[in-house]
Amino acid sequence: MADAPIKRALVSVTDKEGVVDFCRVLSKECGVEIISTGGTARVLREAGIPVEEISDYTGFPEMMDGRVKTLHPMVHGGLLANRDVPEHMAEAAEHGIPMIDLVVVNLYEFEKTVADKDVTFANAIEHIDIGGPSMLRSAAKNAASVTVVCDPADYTRVLETMEHNHGATTLELRLELQAKVFARTAAYDTAIANWLADELAKNQGASESGPATVFPERLSRSWVKAEDLRYGENPHQAAAFYRDGDAAPCSLANAVQLNGKPLSYNNLLDTDAAWAAVREFDEPACVILKHQNPCGSATAKDVTAAYDKAYACDPVSAFGGIIACNREVPLDLVEHFADQNKQFVEVLIAPGYTEEALDRLAKRKNLRVLQTGGVDRPAALEARTIDGGVLVQEVDLASEDPSTFTVVTEREPSEQELHDLLFGWKVVKTVKSNAILIAKDDAGIGMGPGQPNRVDSARIACDRAHAACERMGVPAENLAAASDAFFPFRDDVDELAARGVTAIIQPGGSVRDEEVIEACNEHGIAMVFTGVRHFRH
Amino acid sequence: MADAPIKRALVSVTDKEGVVDFCRVLSKECGVEIISTGGTARVLREAGIPVEEISDYTGFPEMMDGRVKTLHPMVHGGLLANRDVPEHMAEAAEHGIPMIDLVVVNLYEFEKTVADKDVTFANAIEHIDIGGPSMLRSAAKNAASVTVVCDPADYTRVLETMEHNHGATTLELRLELQAKVFARTAAYDTAIANWLADELAKNQGASESGPATVFPERLSRSWVKAEDLRYGENPHQAAAFYRDGDAAPCSLANAVQLNGKPLSYNNLLDTDAAWAAVREFDEPACVILKHQNPCGSATAKDVTAAYDKAYACDPVSAFGGIIACNREVPLDLVEHFADQNKQFVEVLIAPGYTEEALDRLAKRKNLRVLQTGGVDRPAALEARTIDGGVLVQEVDLASEDPSTFTVVTEREPSEQELHDLLFGWKVVKTVKSNAILIAKDDAGIGMGPGQPNRVDSARIACDRAHAACERMGVPAENLAAASDAFFPFRDDVDELAARGVTAIIQPGGSVRDEEVIEACNEHGIAMVFTGVRHFRH
Repeated sequence: MADAPIKRALVSVTDKEGVVDFCRVLSKECGVEIISTGGTARVLREAGIPVEEISDYTGFPEMMDGRVKTLHPMVHGGLLANRDVPEHMAEAAEHGIPMIDLVVVNLYEFEKTVADKDVTFANAIEHIDIGGPSMLRSAAKNAASVTVVCDPADYTRVLETMEHNHGATTLELRLELQAKVFARTAAYDTAIANWLADELAKNQGASESGPATVFPERLSRSWVKAEDLRYGENPHQAAAFYRDGDAAPCSLANAVQLNGKPLSYNNLLDTDAAWAAVREFDEPACVILKHQNPCGSATAKDVTAAYDKAYACDPVSAFGGIIACNREVPLDLVEHFADQNKQFVEVLIAPGYTEEALDRLAKRKNLRVLQTGGVDRPAALEARTIDGGVLVQEVDLASEDPSTFTVVTEREPSEQELHDLLFGWKVVKTVKSNAILIAKDDAGIGMGPGQPNRVDSARIACDRAHAACERMGVPAENLAAASDAFFPFRDDVDELAARGVTAIIQPGGSVRDEEVIEACNEHGIAMVFTGVRHFRH
Repeated sequence: MADAPIKRALVSVTDKEGVVDFCRVLSKECGVEIISTGGTARVLREAGIPVEEISDYTGFPEMMDGRVKTLHPMVHGGLLANRDVPEHMAEAAEHGIPMIDLVVVNLYEFEKTVADKDVTFANAIEHIDIGGPSMLRSAAKNAASVTVVCDPADYTRVLETMEHNHGATTLELRLELQAKVFARTAAYDTAIANWLADELAKNQGASESGPATVFPERLSRSWVKAEDLRYGENPHQAAAFYRDGDAAPCSLANAVQLNGKPLSYNNLLDTDAAWAAVREFDEPACVILKHQNPCGSATAKDVTAAYDKAYACDPVSAFGGIIACNREVPLDLVEHFADQNKQFVEVLIAPGYTEEALDRLAKRKNLRVLQTGGVDRPAALEARTIDGGVLVQEVDLASEDPSTFTVVTEREPSEQELHDLLFGWKVVKTVKSNAILIAKDDAGIGMGPGQPNRVDSARIACDRAHAACERMGVPAENLAAASDAFFPFRDDVDELAARGVTAIIQPGGSVRDEEVIEACNEHGIAMVFTGVRHFRH
């Protein structure tokens, strides 16, 4: 009894792909009566498939430019009647409402409608489908009796099921299609709701260039699965990766994988951090990242030189890391890390690759190579679930103008010091808080990430910087330090001063700023306040 | 011309709150004609407000137990007609379709329908509203002319606007209500879609007790705003906190704030981590957390003793931390951190507080005090956006049975060592990866979080453990070390052995396990393999 025979179908689709073949079989082989609307009816009729126009079927003319076509008891009674309740069937019979057993409707992605830069507000509103979602929802509610198809990819399965079930569908299939419909209508209205919220925020005076700073009372988001992942952060956690409907062109989600094994959950998380970090720079830059932190970072005259400097920051940590570059990757860069297996690399991400570089990379079957096509990074919101809810914030894209920074110490930083400070300031914002970054000659040679107090971060950063200097055979002096947040006490300055730091950049804003500045003056350190904090957790 | 006068309203609500007063003013003072359905019509009529039944209005009887009431051209034509297009108005007139200027409809939260444990699948499906969302969507699409109210909270604003505009609403108000409607229908269908996906996963054989491991093709989520936050991770980032419709009872999102300033973004993020960490333990436990990492952690015979031990792990880092307890907080615990301002505390979270403890806490006006009512932690999914998409995974709730662990070294751990290893294993999973945790006597005295290589994590953990031992006046020996993931090389073991570690717990699974075990045997270390990894980034 769970089988539901299909005698009558209502077909109204924006995506016409496969609909003619599907309806031909339904009509010619299964004897299904087809009711249809406007464009769909025309296409089917031209293919020689007999169809009845919806207005003939309901006896009610199509009106108001098609706004009111299917919103009629003849349609919805035929979709919603519970076949097992005699009263429902008697009422249907009394009012001449035939049963509709199959609904084939699809919705045009609203994200695509509003992605068109020329679309006006009125235009976009006109595209909001009313009849389609109503039919889909009625049919899906009544999945006990009605089959509903919102995705052309399911035509074949429906036909195959009918073929094996004497023209009927199974309950199992209908329940799957039911779930799919509500997922679809949820995503459709989510796209509309988010666009309307953005439009409203614009009207209410939020900056047009920045992201919406007005957070709606209800936040809905919808994503399409990019892939099931083998597992999550750990093998016992199931996981999947979903893509935004409107993911930006040069985003990680839209990167093309040119080589290598599938990306894991941790690969995606780390590549995201690496890709964000390297895009801080306008000049050729390379970031090597491990466990969310940039263990190597550098800028140089070209991207290969930047890689060499980034690798030299911490060769031990670089093992198994992610390499991110903000320029096309040439052959010599690949040779520098691939030759003699100098560095084992999990993922390489860059805007592009030369042909020779790609040929060379292809020899490393496992190495995941991602191409983004560019480095643009538009404003966006980021979200992170916590226990029972979700935190949403603007992505930290602040790119401060150094001319707004203030020197607060007696001594001004030298030109070289200032240069290193500005480099460090860009890298430290990509290090997990509490973060201290020691910079020298356009390289992040000492990273102190994720400690519960800033002195420990400073100590760890200095340990790394000193080890790097020793390896490079240069004295560990004239070091520049960047701190992602203010110093709560002067002990941080004392620690840094004792380890060869002569210049410091930090937000400022502590109640003990005076004491901290005084400490710098005592040590002859030049200190710059940015006025902006860059916590990253 | 942007003002839209209201002459006729369609009112059909599940939430009857305020609807009588609203409609009384509409009817008696504004002369609005009211059309209504079933229960709403009855309530209004009993209050002496003249209403027309929808079936009289459409001339079509209510049928199929109310499934088909409002899905009629008389209703949707009256909602969708573009008042500015003469053809639309002519067609409406020709078919006797009057204009409907106001729609008042609300939807019963689907989460509440399915939260009832006794609800059957058929029951829940019966509750899916078809007519309501259709009317809301039609009216919202035509917000240029039609006012639509899906939330009783807006009745007053509509009346006030009409009062100041000669019985009309402003375009500004209608656009706000339009956005609200699609946010509502998106959330409604999202709740249905997620419930259906879970039901489908159950049918398809996923474990009933565990979370859905079947990830749907389209993932939709919807949240209700708990509050706008002052700012996000940093002052230049706008942020908000949203609550799940079905947040678990003892979750952070459902915690009651009993004292203190509003929670910041970073407070919420850190409190989430602290609350997860302390719930790892069955025995009385306390975790002190800073920047996502537990700088102090301990279990003891009671929660005050646990706090004292946790604080002693790292008093410097504890400054400005979050304290999480898994037992009711008594007065003496509060006195221990509050007296002489020993520890500055940002947030205190616990299942409950004694009356005396609360009285004492009230003296600290700023201290945020959260009460969860319990410690249960059901299986759940967590999500984190990355550039252009979102990663979704099961929360890491694995709670391994120690009887499945294997001793892989020649020497077995002593009883005390095994005790410390099992304690350390619970804490290390809450430390950011790469993570090493040194445990001694039920306290996490040395934490090595977030380093790009495991030797550095081991070194940092040992530095902290040694400092702690020195402060406590105990020798830094017989230390137990937990590692969240396997050791890639033996250097980690050599480092730990040199610093007084005699027992190690770790997942195992490295290609160099043999070498690592051999190193342990050389040093006389007892090592346990768990077979489970606990990365946390």
